[in-house]
This record gives sequence, C-alpha cells and structure tokens, in this order.
Amino acid sequence: MSNHILKCISCKKEFDPKPGLYYCESCGYIMGTLEVIYDYKTIKKSSSVTEKKFDNKASMYQFDFLLPTKPKGKFDDYVGGTPLYKFNLLGIKDVLVKYDGSNPSSSYKDRASSIAINRAIDEGADILFCASTGNAASSLAILNAPTGMRTYIFVPASIPAGKRAQLEISGAEVMAVEGTYDEVYDVSLDIGLKKGWYCRHAAINPYLLEGKKTGAFEIIIQNDFVVPDYVLVGVGDGTVISSLYKGFWEFKEVGLTDKIPRIIGVQAEGIPAIKEVFDKGKPYTPIAIIGKTIADSISVGKPRDVIKACTYIEACDGYFISLTDEEILDAIVELGKETGLFAEPAGAVPYGGLKKLIYEEKITESDTVCLVITGNGLKDINAVEGVINTESISIKDLEKRFE
Amino acid sequence: MSNHILKCISCKKEFDPKPGLYYCESCGYIMGTLEVIYDYKTIKKSSSVTEKKFDNKASMYQFDFLLPTKPKGKFDDYVGGTPLYKFNLLGIKDVLVKYDGSNPSSSYKDRASSIAINRAIDEGADILFCASTGNAASSLAILNAPTGMRTYIFVPASIPAGKRAQLEISGAEVMAVEGTYDEVYDVSLDIGLKKGWYCRHAAINPYLLEGKKTGAFEIIIQNDFVVPDYVLVGVGDGTVISSLYKGFWEFKEVGLTDKIPRIIGVQAEGIPAIKEVFDKGKPYTPIAIIGKTIADSISVGKPRDVIKACTYIEACDGYFISLTDEEILDAIVELGKETGLFAEPAGAVPYGGLKKLIYEEKITESDTVCLVITGNGLKDINAVEGVINTESISIKDLEKRFE
Repeated sequence: MSNHILKCISCKKEFDPKPGLYYCESCGYIMGTLEVIYDYKTIKKSSSVTEKKFDNKASMYQFDFLLPTKPKGKFDDYVGGTPLYKFNLLGIKDVLVKYDGSNPSSSYKDRASSIAINRAIDEGADILFCASTGNAASSLAILNAPTGMRTYIFVPASIPAGKRAQLEISGAEVMAVEGTYDEVYDVSLDIGLKKGWYCRHAAINPYLLEGKKTGAFEIIIQNDFVVPDYVLVGVGDGTVISSLYKGFWEFKEVGLTDKIPRIIGVQAEGIPAIKEVFDKGKPYTPIAIIGKTIADSISVGKPRDVIKACTYIEACDGYFISLTDEEILDAIVELGKETGLFAEPAGAVPYGGLKKLIYEEKITESDTVCLVITGNGLKDINAVEGVINTESISIKDLEKRFE
Repeated sequence: MSNHILKCISCKKEFDPKPGLYYCESCGYIMGTLEVIYDYKTIKKSSSVTEKKFDNKASMYQFDFLLPTKPKGKFDDYVGGTPLYKFNLLGIKDVLVKYDGSNPSSSYKDRASSIAINRAIDEGADILFCASTGNAASSLAILNAPTGMRTYIFVPASIPAGKRAQLEISGAEVMAVEGTYDEVYDVSLDIGLKKGWYCRHAAINPYLLEGKKTGAFEIIIQNDFVVPDYVLVGVGDGTVISSLYKGFWEFKEVGLTDKIPRIIGVQAEGIPAIKEVFDKGKPYTPIAIIGKTIADSISVGKPRDVIKACTYIEACDGYFISLTDEEILDAIVELGKETGLFAEPAGAVPYGGLKKLIYEEKITESDTVCLVITGNGLKDINAVEGVINTESISIKDLEKRFE
C-alpha cells in the first residue's frame, strides 16, 4: 500500500497514485500542481520518528518516513548527507552553507534523480528521460548508468562542456538540441510522454520534489534542529525552492520543528521569470519570457514550477530578488576567496543575494542565514574564464621574484 | 608529547620530529626517505583501538590513533569517508571502487592537504606552499582558504583548466610556471625552503603520506575488514601508492587485519619513471626521464617518492604496469559507461590496468580487486574531448527521429 496520496495545489482534489499520473485530472493538463501528501498526523505520533536519531552524514533515505520509495540504486547510499559548513561571511557569524557539490554527480539534482530511478524501478519502467539545463541530466545519466534501465537525455546544445562531458561519459543517449532550454523541454516532454518513458522532469513528476526536499531536512538536523531565519537559493524552474519549502513545512507538520524560514529565491536579472510572476501577485499565472544569463542552471524563461514556487514562498513570507551576471561572477569569486568553495554560477547566487540584502539592510547580522549551493564550480569553468587570472611566469622571473 | 618518531627508510636511523625536518640528517639531502612511525605495539593493546566501532562515512580523523595531528580546519569533517562502491566489472563480481572525487576539492589529495594544514597550525606557520600537477595544489588552496594562513602555489602553466580555475577562485597566490612539473617542483622547493614556508610536497614532507594512507584504512573498514587480493592505483610521484601500502601495513601491524594486498601501480607508457626504476631492481635509485601523457596527474618524469614506492611495492609482492594514452582514454569511457563514474585520466588508469591484467590472465575472476579512483573527471574535461560525442540535433530532426 502506498504511504501517500497526490493532491492538486490549485483545486485541492486528491488522487491515488498511479503510473503516468503527472497532472491533476480535474484541472487538466497543467503541469506542476500535484503534491505528494503523507499522513502527517500518524507520522507525528510515531515514536520511530519522534525519537529517531538522525545522522548528519547518512543518505537522504534516512528520511524514509517522508519519502515515496526505497533506495535500490548503487549510488543511493551517497545521495544527500552533504556538508553543512559554517563560515563568517559578510559580517554575519556562522552563515550556514549547504554544499551539494559533493553528491555523486556533483549537484543537488541527485536527490531528485535517485527518487526518479527508484520510482521507475517500482513501476517496472525500462527507459527514463529528462530535459535539463545540464545538472538534472548528468545526475540522471550517472545514477541510472548501473541500473540496466536506459536513459534518454534532452539538453540545449549550449550547455557547459563539463555537464556535456558527464553525460556522454555516462553512456546515456544524449540529444543535444539546437534550441533554448524551454524549447527543448517542450519537445522532449511530447516525445517522452508519447513513448511512455518514465519522466524525470522535476516540475512535472511530483515525486521528484520529494527527493529535493531532503536538503531542507538536512539543514535542520545538521544545525541541531535550529531552523535558520532565512534560506537563500538560486531559482530557475522553481523546483528546488519549492522543495525546500515543502521540506521545512513537513518537518514542522510532523512536529520535529516549530518554524519555517523565510525562503528567498535568487534569480538572474537577465531572465527573472518567477520573480515577475510573484511580484505581479495572485493568481500566479505561468509565463514565458525570453532572456539570458551566464548562470545556465537558472536560465529558464518558462518556469514549470511557478505555481508551487510562488504559493510556497508567499506562505513563508519569502520573496524573490535578482542579480546581474556581473554580480553573479563577483559572487563566485568572493565566495571562493572567503570559503575556498567553488560554486557553479547558479550555486553562487545565494551568496550574491545575501550580499545584496545585507547592503539593503533587509538582512542584518543578528539574522541566522543558510545559503544553498547547488552545484560544483567544476561543472562550468568557462563561466569564470573572464574573471580569473590566466597569466603564467617564467622560471627565471619566478626566481627573481622570490630572491 | 608527540605520538610518533621519524625513521629513515634507507639507513633506519630514528629522529624526534621538529619543524622543518624534511630529510634524513644522516643520509643527507635525499627527499622522500623519512617515515612517520607510531608505537604500534602499544596501539595494538589499546582497547580503544581494538574495540573501536569504525564508521564508513566518518572523516579520516576517526583514525586518530595513527595520525600525527588533530582536525582543526573547516573542511576536516568531510575529508575522507568517501564512497566504496561495488560494481560487476570485466567479468569480476563486486569489484571495489574507492571514489575519492567526492572529497571537498574533488580529489584524493585532500587527505594530505588536511594533515599539512593541521600540522602547519601545530607548528605556528603562516604560509604554506606546494608544487603540484594540479590536484594537490587546488586541494591545499581550497582547504587552506578559510584558515587565515596564506597559500603559495606553483604549478606548470599547462595544468587543466578545471584545476587552474579551482586554484584561482580559492584566492591562493598562484604561480603558473612555464615549465614541466619536474622543473616547477625543483624551483618551488628551493624558494619555499629558503623562505621557511610550511612545505606541502607529499614526497618531501613525511606527514603528508599520513593523510593519504587513510584511503587504505577506509577500504578495509568499508569492506568489513576483508582485505582485497589486489589494489590498483595510478602512479606519478609515488606518494599515493606508498601511502596505500603504509595504510594496509599499519592496520596489520596493530592487529586489525592479517593481510596486505598486492598493490599494483599503473603508470602512463609515455612517462613510466617509477616502473623503470622498479623493473631495473635494487638498489632503487631516483631517475629523471622525459616524456608525456594525457593523464596530467601522473605526468611525472622525476618521481620523488620512488624509494618508498619501490620498497613498499616489493614488500607486498606488487608491481608496476603502464598504459598508452589510448588505453587511458578507453578506460575513462568504459568506466563511465559501466558505472556512471566520471574519472579524470589518472583516476581511470586503475580500470585500464585491471582490464590489461585480466587480458593477460594475471588477475582472474576469483580474485578480489579494489580500484582507487583519485580524481573527479570534471577536473579535466579537455582530456576526453576527442572521445565523446559533441554533435547536436535540430528540433525538427529530433521530432522526426522519435515519430
């Protein structure tokens, strides 16, 4: 028997899970409105949950009481359990930094891919597919490589070389499509659903968010159940930020905490689609804008999880801000210098966002803050080409310098 | 009081540790002959060791009873504790794959850098320096960024772009020197020792190997104390392979195991310096050869840990083999396809070595084998440029393909 139901965030109708159910059968073909809902009251009363000893380094499957599948993949034991570092940053003591670059494929997306693969096994699938700006794709490709199920990947041909290399090396079937992420997404969805492949599109398949929410659970347990005042994260499609809200909300719902942080979504000024929807106010209506940014992971003009993202962020009194590409590059460099951590552009935007909000006095030194760094900087080294030193020195000049 | 002494592997003389003691005062200025020796008999009798519960995911500092310093750095809790995966590979069931690409700087070298930083703190240093083919450098630069001590890095200007980006982002002082690794090593050593900086050259400073050996400890505990028959690892300077032997030897010495695996060093055919010394036989004499390989991390013509490496590998009945660049590239691709794991060239050579030895019937399916993958493939994506697909497809052609 299933431990959950599906519920539409718009019309509130509830459904029993069944293979291929990706949208609300009542609202119709609108993606990204189904939520996975557990029996929180019963969970709250269960001593195996209330008295559970959590482990800072255990995989995300330690939260099995709030997950829709069980670990079966080779990599599952190393998905999640990523570091929560503390650094003194920008005048704030002990800024929490959740660093997901150490997941098996070096990004946050492994949390979702792992769930997708295990649900696909549950449902007897033999092919999984994914459209992605890069990280979700390489994550699925790598984690799915040893399962025997095949992987079809659709990405814009312009993705960073590191992400492309990961994909190709993993043995996945890669379609590098000449088009924007938004175009690739639409065409891949048509193909994949028509073919009946298992769908690893985080904003479509409601289960994907279930993996991603574990990042919030880990921030809580790794900070000894002290929930920070603010959590900042980069936003493209809106699934990671939605998942963080759901994670914080669920731990409160089952009585493990009593607070949800204000979650702040950081977008790129060149393509701030969700911010535009949110700032315009209710009813939150999906849009499609055209734009670009150096931060490929959040270069999304037609965000798919806009309804969840806006609804959730409103519920926790959060908001969205945006950064210029210059501010994003500065953020990568400053974060690296201050902490040593090398983040991909979309992974560094929370740092840039914090800097901006401190400057605007919206966050002060008495606030507790968590930055979510979603991807390893090695994924996209071209992005920093213009801002790092590339000079060399001869042996003779070197000896002279240190005479 | 110190928990160890230093002992020369050549003349067997023993010394008390003191800052700046990098070579045997009896043999003279020959690097790479000092070993860190603990009181193994006392450790063997200590119930805190014999009854210790080890943790597969704990940092390498869980082995503090065999380490020369204590953790003090921000990253120390996440150095080591890397995955030991099991895959069916090349006809052998459950090949152990130690994947060190998930360390903080994405390579094995963090184990040594962490020890260097903590020893430098112990000794009151304020500058650390390192010459490196790339991984040791970026490791030191990243781990040292938050300590307040400065980092001077000397690398060949030709290191892969990913490693250079990590270095520059970390805020280290980077000297990208126009010369080979061997030339850069020599000049940096002259400068650093003259200036009195703390030396993070693994083959010089005997403490560095103490961090690296923890990889062997983890292979043992993560495989439930079943020591594999063979361990394969890439070899450049010879420090990682030396450290693995020392780790296996020490666990046997303190009674935690009763076996040392045969350790096989895999070099690049284009520059197989240690293999040449080993094959020539005793007395093992350092050499300098000229050559090149695509596997930058093991592109070393003047290996510094040649005496230890050859002595140790002889002691465990191991040997050295070499691979062509073509075989190395094939190994990256095949490993990725079979496992999903993306290794940098030097990280994939153990897989290529295993393939070769199976073909030559030196390793058979009844043997237990461990491959040590020392670095994440994202470190050097240019290396695989020629062997991965880089084609793109138009939306129209894509739709046609999946009609």
